[in-house]
Amino acid sequence: MIMQKPSIPKGTRDFSPFEMVKRDYIFNVIKGVFIKYGYSPIETPALENLSTLLGKYGEEGDKLLFKILNSGDFLSKTNPATIQEKDSNSFAMEISEKGLRYDLTVPFARYVVQNRNDITFPFKRYQIQPVWRADRPQRGRYREFYQCDADVIGSDSLLNEVELLQIIDEVFTLLNINITVKINNRKILAGIADLIGQPDKMNEITTVIDKIEKIGLSNVRKELKERGIPEKAIAELSPFLTMSNKNFEIIKELKERLNNSEQGLRGIEEVEFLLKMTESYNINLKPDFDLTLARGLNYYTGAIIEVRSDDVPIGSICGGGRYDDLTGIFGLKDVSGVGISFGADRIYDVMEQMKVFPSEVTASVRILIVNFGEKEQNQCLEILKKIRKAGIPSEFYPDAVKLKKQMTYANAKQIPYVLLVGEEEIKSRQYTLKNMITGIQEKLALTEIIEKLRQ
Amino acid sequence: MIMQKPSIPKGTRDFSPFEMVKRDYIFNVIKGVFIKYGYSPIETPALENLSTLLGKYGEEGDKLLFKILNSGDFLSKTNPATIQEKDSNSFAMEISEKGLRYDLTVPFARYVVQNRNDITFPFKRYQIQPVWRADRPQRGRYREFYQCDADVIGSDSLLNEVELLQIIDEVFTLLNINITVKINNRKILAGIADLIGQPDKMNEITTVIDKIEKIGLSNVRKELKERGIPEKAIAELSPFLTMSNKNFEIIKELKERLNNSEQGLRGIEEVEFLLKMTESYNINLKPDFDLTLARGLNYYTGAIIEVRSDDVPIGSICGGGRYDDLTGIFGLKDVSGVGISFGADRIYDVMEQMKVFPSEVTASVRILIVNFGEKEQNQCLEILKKIRKAGIPSEFYPDAVKLKKQMTYANAKQIPYVLLVGEEEIKSRQYTLKNMITGIQEKLALTEIIEKLRQ
Repeated sequence: MIMQKPSIPKGTRDFSPFEMVKRDYIFNVIKGVFIKYGYSPIETPALENLSTLLGKYGEEGDKLLFKILNSGDFLSKTNPATIQEKDSNSFAMEISEKGLRYDLTVPFARYVVQNRNDITFPFKRYQIQPVWRADRPQRGRYREFYQCDADVIGSDSLLNEVELLQIIDEVFTLLNINITVKINNRKILAGIADLIGQPDKMNEITTVIDKIEKIGLSNVRKELKERGIPEKAIAELSPFLTMSNKNFEIIKELKERLNNSEQGLRGIEEVEFLLKMTESYNINLKPDFDLTLARGLNYYTGAIIEVRSDDVPIGSICGGGRYDDLTGIFGLKDVSGVGISFGADRIYDVMEQMKVFPSEVTASVRILIVNFGEKEQNQCLEILKKIRKAGIPSEFYPDAVKLKKQMTYANAKQIPYVLLVGEEEIKSRQYTLKNMITGIQEKLALTEIIEKLRQ
Repeated sequence: MIMQKPSIPKGTRDFSPFEMVKRDYIFNVIKGVFIKYGYSPIETPALENLSTLLGKYGEEGDKLLFKILNSGDFLSKTNPATIQEKDSNSFAMEISEKGLRYDLTVPFARYVVQNRNDITFPFKRYQIQPVWRADRPQRGRYREFYQCDADVIGSDSLLNEVELLQIIDEVFTLLNINITVKINNRKILAGIADLIGQPDKMNEITTVIDKIEKIGLSNVRKELKERGIPEKAIAELSPFLTMSNKNFEIIKELKERLNNSEQGLRGIEEVEFLLKMTESYNINLKPDFDLTLARGLNYYTGAIIEVRSDDVPIGSICGGGRYDDLTGIFGLKDVSGVGISFGADRIYDVMEQMKVFPSEVTASVRILIVNFGEKEQNQCLEILKKIRKAGIPSEFYPDAVKLKKQMTYANAKQIPYVLLVGEEEIKSRQYTLKNMITGIQEKLALTEIIEKLRQ
């Protein structure tokens, strides 16, 4: 046998018990809010046909898909010419039919179309599953990470957007994370693209605008020029990128500038509605209308939303928007939807850095019964059985090793109580309970011990 | 845009909201028992290095691994000779470095070795995650399915085996599934292989014995012969395969037959201990000692366990065993462990067929507020906010469509109550609550409604 040094693929992570309880806490908070707001769970396979995934995330996204090698003698079905040309991209398509889920939105659209006859619309679904991207790993960017999505499909009411903003508000309030929520509307961006005479370039322009925070206005101008946007159009675009940061002032100014664009005006009205509604229905959440917010994904057509932590610069921790035709590519036309996605891994990083996990989010075992040896063993197992019957997470150390080792184990596992059941204790039916935090020991009957553990 | 007919890879499944609540029920029961017994959660990545996975599941297992195509220009790093030879297996190793998790045990062993300095042993961990196998799909066999594992590593006490049997007992009692539990011990099988003069062929012999229930004794003899086991050895083996089915009778007979095999006798003692302990500590569970139980996986070295449904012939729904050196290949010697794995997908199939899901395992939304239009909208949203504040899953239909459509929606989603908030109701602050099961309508104040929904 060759000895292997154990390792995991870069960009992936193991999660220890201490990390898991914190992660579970985040998932449970998000899931609890989704359920309270009437969303139902679904799950889709990790593997999707590549035909489902390709072309949905832009050229860059296609490259980041993890592709699964076909099983069996896959080479026998390949075209020798492709191999000789050494074209990895074309060759990949000959030896791979499946890929790993890249997000939850496209599989959801596929699910909706495939199961359209069993779904009653509007369909409010949530989905909490990992996704995979062959991205370069860096801070806050992993190759395997969880998304927590809520979408409503089959309703174009803006009340859905309002509800999703309420969910964002409630989740981050519960998690104790300070956030800034930015909103914008793709219809406004389309209106602007129209106005500057570049309606076909809208996606390209928004992709560049999206980077303004990172690279600055002058670099945005430069990149737009490199991408072939005429100087005149860039000049006409510029005032939109340097507008006031007061929500209702931007709206006023935009209404004037875009008063010839039906689409643009509709977008402004939608933003206005969301701002007014969140003002009346939310407590903490005050979205900022930010005209430079574009969101990379091409399928958005209406409202777009992005959430960042005020304290930790780790990028977007939640985002979403409305898409008017995501199911169209799979054959179901004119079904509008809107959704948001929480990035659980980044949320974890923020909470860890800000130390905002509640103190009760710790290991769950409440008591360890010390193993003194075979003589007391049966008695210990009987006591253990009763404690467990009361629903209390508990354990009996499986080996009769030194007391010190067993105490070290209890401490390492953050078990708050240890029970000593010796000869004397068995006789008196009064067992020694040690509080591992205070160090206090007391002799108690089993019913008293169970009572204490329940607190 | 080309229209795509949506589909998913064969052997994979989508899960609808109705399936999800039932699946969640199973996971929660298993997780709850694991926690009560003092097991802590971990998670490992879906992607592992192929070097971690290959050679751990036998030749057959290696073929069933889903391999991930390397990113980028993978062809440039290949050896032209391998391609010309059209050897898919060798070529796969040149263009793929990662694979999908095949089970949870090998990743767990890898985790333990990699994190040995942070772990206090014995390490009791549970892990509930999907695994992937490129197996031919058939009833009860999926290409993506969940395993729910509990293992104790770093303790060779047989009390761990007893505890795992208790967990099996408790989980299936809670799930209301009638089971038969078979146990055996690899040390006995090794002792028999010794006795018949075939110590090196033990794995091969057990693999064949494992099929006895499927193919019968005469075919087992035939296959052993084909695999080169001498006639004499097969003749000596036969009495072991046709022994009594009474636990303590087999033990008595085995002790005589194997009285020269130290290893064999130790195995018998271990089985005896488990049978005695389960007799004194369990209520429902009575394991059957079955000498023909072998379990395919080569890493087992001691007790082996297998659970089947008494009512649905779907194969093993839980299984496990002791492994004395699983971490050895990763560089950590002499660490014994024992574990079990619940097959949640087959458990689901059994429960569905036997109709044993509790009736309260249904959709969670408790109330739908009907949308009559803009005039009543704000009032409805206020009421909704209060109901949600009380923690009750609830929703407001987002569009002001016909009442009938909204009622159909409530029925399809199995929402038990619908609230009607019309002009009159707003004035009187008495809202019409309709019970969707009985059809009864009554006018109630909001506090009364919330009280009712809480029941």
